[in-house]
Amino acid sequence: LASWSPLASANDELLKLEKDPNQWTQPAGNYANTRYSKLDQITNKNVKKLQVAWTFSTGVLRGHEGGPLVIGNMMYLHSPFPNIVYALDLDKNGQIAWKYEPKQDPNVIPVMCCDTVNRGVAYGDGLIFLHQADAKLVALDAKTGKVAWSANDGDPTKGETGTSAPLVVKHMVLVGNSGGEFGVRGKVTAYDTKTGKQVWRAYSMGPDADTLIEPGKTTNLGKPIEADESLKTWQGDQWKIGGGTTWGWISYDPELNLIYYGTGNPSTWNPSQRPGDNKWSMTVFARDADTGKAKWLYQMTPHDEWDYDGVNEMVLTDQKIDGKDRKLLVHFDRNGFGYTLDRESGELLVAEKYDPAVNWANKIDVKTGLPDRVKKYSTEANGEDNNTQGVCPAALGSKDQQPSAYSPKTGLFYVPTNHVCMDYEPFKVAYTAGQPYVGATLSMYPPKGDDHLGNFIAWDATKGKIKWTIPEQFSVWSGALATAGNVVFYGTLEGYLKAVDAETGKELYRFKTPSGIIGNVNTYTHNGKQYIAVLSGLGGWAGIGMAAGLTGDTEGLGAVGAYKSLSQYTQLGGTLTVFALPD
Amino acid sequence: LASWSPLASANDELLKLEKDPNQWTQPAGNYANTRYSKLDQITNKNVKKLQVAWTFSTGVLRGHEGGPLVIGNMMYLHSPFPNIVYALDLDKNGQIAWKYEPKQDPNVIPVMCCDTVNRGVAYGDGLIFLHQADAKLVALDAKTGKVAWSANDGDPTKGETGTSAPLVVKHMVLVGNSGGEFGVRGKVTAYDTKTGKQVWRAYSMGPDADTLIEPGKTTNLGKPIEADESLKTWQGDQWKIGGGTTWGWISYDPELNLIYYGTGNPSTWNPSQRPGDNKWSMTVFARDADTGKAKWLYQMTPHDEWDYDGVNEMVLTDQKIDGKDRKLLVHFDRNGFGYTLDRESGELLVAEKYDPAVNWANKIDVKTGLPDRVKKYSTEANGEDNNTQGVCPAALGSKDQQPSAYSPKTGLFYVPTNHVCMDYEPFKVAYTAGQPYVGATLSMYPPKGDDHLGNFIAWDATKGKIKWTIPEQFSVWSGALATAGNVVFYGTLEGYLKAVDAETGKELYRFKTPSGIIGNVNTYTHNGKQYIAVLSGLGGWAGIGMAAGLTGDTEGLGAVGAYKSLSQYTQLGGTLTVFALPD
Ligand SMILES: O=C(O)c1cc(C(=O)O)c2c(n1)C(=O)C(=O)c1cc(C(=O)O)[nH]c1-2
Ligand SMILES: O=C(O)c1cc(C(=O)O)c2c(n1)C(=O)C(=O)c1cc(C(=O)O)[nH]c1-2
Repeated sequence: LASWSPLASANDELLKLEKDPNQWTQPAGNYANTRYSKLDQITNKNVKKLQVAWTFSTGVLRGHEGGPLVIGNMMYLHSPFPNIVYALDLDKNGQIAWKYEPKQDPNVIPVMCCDTVNRGVAYGDGLIFLHQADAKLVALDAKTGKVAWSANDGDPTKGETGTSAPLVVKHMVLVGNSGGEFGVRGKVTAYDTKTGKQVWRAYSMGPDADTLIEPGKTTNLGKPIEADESLKTWQGDQWKIGGGTTWGWISYDPELNLIYYGTGNPSTWNPSQRPGDNKWSMTVFARDADTGKAKWLYQMTPHDEWDYDGVNEMVLTDQKIDGKDRKLLVHFDRNGFGYTLDRESGELLVAEKYDPAVNWANKIDVKTGLPDRVKKYSTEANGEDNNTQGVCPAALGSKDQQPSAYSPKTGLFYVPTNHVCMDYEPFKVAYTAGQPYVGATLSMYPPKGDDHLGNFIAWDATKGKIKWTIPEQFSVWSGALATAGNVVFYGTLEGYLKAVDAETGKELYRFKTPSGIIGNVNTYTHNGKQYIAVLSGLGGWAGIGMAAGLTGDTEGLGAVGAYKSLSQYTQLGGTLTVFALPD
Repeated sequence: LASWSPLASANDELLKLEKDPNQWTQPAGNYANTRYSKLDQITNKNVKKLQVAWTFSTGVLRGHEGGPLVIGNMMYLHSPFPNIVYALDLDKNGQIAWKYEPKQDPNVIPVMCCDTVNRGVAYGDGLIFLHQADAKLVALDAKTGKVAWSANDGDPTKGETGTSAPLVVKHMVLVGNSGGEFGVRGKVTAYDTKTGKQVWRAYSMGPDADTLIEPGKTTNLGKPIEADESLKTWQGDQWKIGGGTTWGWISYDPELNLIYYGTGNPSTWNPSQRPGDNKWSMTVFARDADTGKAKWLYQMTPHDEWDYDGVNEMVLTDQKIDGKDRKLLVHFDRNGFGYTLDRESGELLVAEKYDPAVNWANKIDVKTGLPDRVKKYSTEANGEDNNTQGVCPAALGSKDQQPSAYSPKTGLFYVPTNHVCMDYEPFKVAYTAGQPYVGATLSMYPPKGDDHLGNFIAWDATKGKIKWTIPEQFSVWSGALATAGNVVFYGTLEGYLKAVDAETGKELYRFKTPSGIIGNVNTYTHNGKQYIAVLSGLGGWAGIGMAAGLTGDTEGLGAVGAYKSLSQYTQLGGTLTVFALPD
C-alpha cells in the first residue's frame, strides 16, 4: 500500500456528493460556488404554497451567516461565536445527535471586525471541519462529534480570527483568515484532512517564497510576474502588517485542479500611510490545489482607498461568450464592478458596474485591468483628515460576503447587493499588535435621491448587464439560491425569506422569519421531499449596531447609522427555518 | 366632576374588551382565567392545515413564559429579563411600533428561583403594565411606550422579585410577588392605574391588619376566622420571613367583585424549622376587589413539607353540580389535587387527584379540607438530614405555573401536567436577607415504572375525574388554549405546538417551534382571520438546567437531573410563532 498523501487522489466521495442535489455537501452548494440546485419539486408555479416545515433555535444571538450542510440523514448546523456545531438527525425530526461547543476565550470577540459571524462548516473524509473565531481549525468526527484533530491557524491575540467556511479539496482542508482591520497578513492554508498537518500555505503578500508565486510562470492578465513583485509595492516591512486577508469564499475546478479566492483590503484604511499598489491585496488568485502555487492572479483595486476587499465569491461557470464556450470565473467585487474572467488563463473579459450608483471609478480597462478613478472620490488625493464625501459604494461594497447564485437554466446570476455610499475620512494610525489598525472614520447612507439600501439583481455576466432589479429597503446581506424549479430565494435584513421568479424577478412568496437574514439559503431533500433552509439571526457588518449594541452613527466601522432603522423591523436571535410544500 | 377614584366604577372598557374574542386583552384571556376563545374559524376539522404565518425573535434567550396581548391592531409582547416590551403593529406586518427596555440591575438574576421568567403584561386605561424582575411595576403609554409612572413593589436586594402578570381590575392594577425561596413575605398590592399610588396591600401572613382578614367575617370553609389566626400558626416572628408569595395568576369575578389567587410555599423548605400550619401559605384567597379584604380563604396544604406552592390559577366557571347551577372556582394545585370550590362561599365541593401518581396524601376530606397524609412521605416525620424518597408529585407539583384552559362547550378542563416524583432531604438553614433560604436537597424523576415526565389531560371538575390523558415525554410547561372550534392547543418542552380534539384528545396537528415552549397559547383575529400565537423559549424551573447552564442533577432546586435529556431536542431562544390557516 502506498503511504497516505492528501494529494494522492481526487476526493471521489466529495465529487460524487456535490453532484447529488438531494444533499447540500459544500458551504456554497458545490465547488463551483454556483449555489444552484437541480431540485425542481418547488417551482415558480407552486412556491406560493410554501410553508414552514420546522424550526430550530441555535441558542445564540448575534449574526448568523452561512447555512447548514446536509449529508445523508444528517444536518450539520453551526452558530456564530461560541461556534457551536449541531448534528441534527433528519430521520428523527431534527433531534440533536451531537453538539460540539468549543471553549474559546471571549477576548476574541472585540477583535472580530464585523460581528461574531461564521460562514459555515465543511465536510470531507468523514469529518466536519469548523473554523473557529479564535482561528483554530477543528476536525470533528461526523458521526460522533468527537474531535479528531485541531490546528491553530492563527493568533487571535494579534487580531487574527476565523469567520470563513473551510473547503475540502482532495484530502486537504483549505482555510483563509480574518483580521485585515488589525494588520493581519492574509494567507490560505491547506491541511491534511487525516492528520491536520499543514500541506501548504500561501500568503497574500511578501516574498515569492511566502506567496507561492512563481516569477516568470505565474501570470497577471496573461503577463508573467516579476520576482518579488509584491515586495516592490510596499514601503519597507509594511507588507508584514499589510492585510489582504482571505475571509471570503474559496471555489475549486477539479478539472483544472485550481482553487480560486480573493484577498482583502490592504491595512490600514488610511491609504496615505501605505504608498504603492499594495500587492497582492484586492486580488483574485488561481492556485494549484496540490501545491498552492499561483497560476494566475489579478489585482482589482490596486492601492485601495475605500476598503473594497476583494474576497467575494468566485463563481465558476461554463458559458458562451461571443458564441464561444468559455470556462468563466464571475466575481462581484466590493468595488462595485462585476468581473468575468477566463478561469484557465486569467484573462479579463468583462468588467462592468453592477450598481449604477458606483462612482469611484468610471470604468475598468479590460486590457490593463485598471480602474479609471474619479479624483473627487480619491481618499488618498483628498488626504488625511479630510472627509471625502459621497463615495459609492460604501466600504461594505456594492456586495459584501453574501454570495450570489447562478442558474445554468437562465444563464443569469442572482446577486444580493448593497446600495450604499459613504463619507470617508482617513487619519494617521500606529500599528500595535492586537489593536485596531483602521485609520479612517466613515459614515454610510443611501445614494443621493434614493432611500433604499439594497437591490437584488439578475446579472448577465457574459455582457456585464443587469437583467432586472428588485429594490430592497436594506442591503441584501443573505446568500441567494437558484433552483431548477426556476425559483430564486434570498433573505432580507428585516427577516423575510423571499422567492422570486428566475426569469422575471417577480416576487412569488415571502415569509417573515424570526430575525434578520444574513444566512445563505440552501435546499435538499429528505424522504423524497424538497426542503428550503435558511438561518436567520441579524448581525454581520450591516447589522453590527444591533448585534454589538452600538448606537453612534460612525461606530461599527461606519455602518451603524445607515442601518439604524432595522430595529423597527427585527431583533436578534439565531433560528433555522425549514420550508416545504404541503403534502 | 367627582374626584378620581380607582374604585369609582367598573372598568367598562376592560369588561367590553374581554368579551371580544378578536382581541386577547388579559394575560389569561379573560378575568375568569378560562383561556377559552369563542373564535371558531380554526376547527378540529381544519386545524391539520394550520401553517406558520409569521415569527418574531425577542432577542432574548432563557425562559419565555406568558404570551402576548392583542388590543386593536397592536400586539404587546414581553420578554424574560431584561423584560423588554415590544408593541408590534399588526397592520404593518408586525413592525415594531415601540420598544421599552428597562435598565435593571443584573444582580436580580441570581435571586430569581426558577429562571428569569415573566408571565406577561396587562392592559388597562390606555396603559401597558409591566412587572419587572426587580419588582418594579411600570405603567407604559400603550400608544408610545413612554413611562407614565413606576412603583417599587418590593426590594430585590432581599430576594423579592417580579415574575407574575399584573391584572387590571376597575382602575387598579394588582400585582403579586416572588421570593419564597428567599424568605420573602407574600403580598398582593393594588395600585391606582392613573397615579401609581397604592390602594391596598394584603399580605399572606401576619396580623389581620396586614392580611386584611376580618376576624369573625372572613370565612374558612364556611367558618369565621379567629383574630390573628395566622400569627398563631408560626413560631415567634417567623411569619415575617414566611414566604407565601403570590407569583401565580389572579382572577376576578366582576359580579361578586371578588379577586382570587393562591399563596406559595412557607419558607424554608425544611418543615421542622417552622412548626405550625404556617397560615396563610398554600391558601386560596377570595378578596374584595375594592378593599382587598378577605371574604373567604382555604389552606390546601397546611404546614407544607414539599414546596407545593398554592399559586396556580383559579379558573372561574359556571357549571352544574348535582343538577344545580354553581359559581365555581377550579384549581389544579401543585400538591396534585384538583379542587372545585363554590367561589361565592368558599365551600369545598370536590378535591381529587388529577395525576394517579400522587402519593403524599390518600385524599382530601372535603368537609375539613384536610389532606389525609401518608407518613412515609412526610419529610417532617422523616426529619432533617433524612432523604424522603419517592414522593409524588415532586416539588414542582403535578402542575406548576402553566395555566389550564376550560371550554364551556365541552365542560372540560385541559390541564398541562407534570408527572414527576422526588427525593427530598431537608436540612437546617439560617436566614440571611437576600440569600437563598431553601433548606432542602431534591432530586426528581418520573414515577416508578414510567419513563415520561408529563401528561396533558382533560378533567371534569364537577366530578373530579380525568376524561382522557395524553402522555408527554416531558412535563407540559406551557399554558393551554381551548377554542369554540373544539380544538385545544398546548406546547411541549421539546418545542412542539400541538392541537388536539377537545372531545377526544386526538392529536390533530403539531409543529416544531424554534425552542421549547413554556409560553401560553392564545388566539385573536386580524383583518377577520383567526391566528394562534405562542412564545417558545426554553427555561422556567423545568428548563433551568439549560437556561442557567447548570449540570448537577440536584442543582436548580433539584430539577436539573430529570430534564437533562431536553438538550437532545431543543436549545434556548425566544421566538413568537404565529399560525393561521392558508388563505
Ligand atoms: O479584513 C478582514 O479580515 C475582514 C474580515 C471580515 C470577517 O472576517 O468577517 C470582514 C471584513 N474584513 C470586511 O471588510 C467586511 O466587509 C465584512 C463583512 C462581514 C460580515 O460578515 O458581515 N465580515 C467582514
Ligand atoms: O416561591 C416563590 O416566590 C416562587 C417564585 C417563582 C417564580 O416567581 O417564578 C416560582 C416558584 N416559587 C416555584 O415554586 C416554582 O415552582 C416556580 C416555577 C416557575 C417557573 O416559572 O417555571 N417559577 C416558580
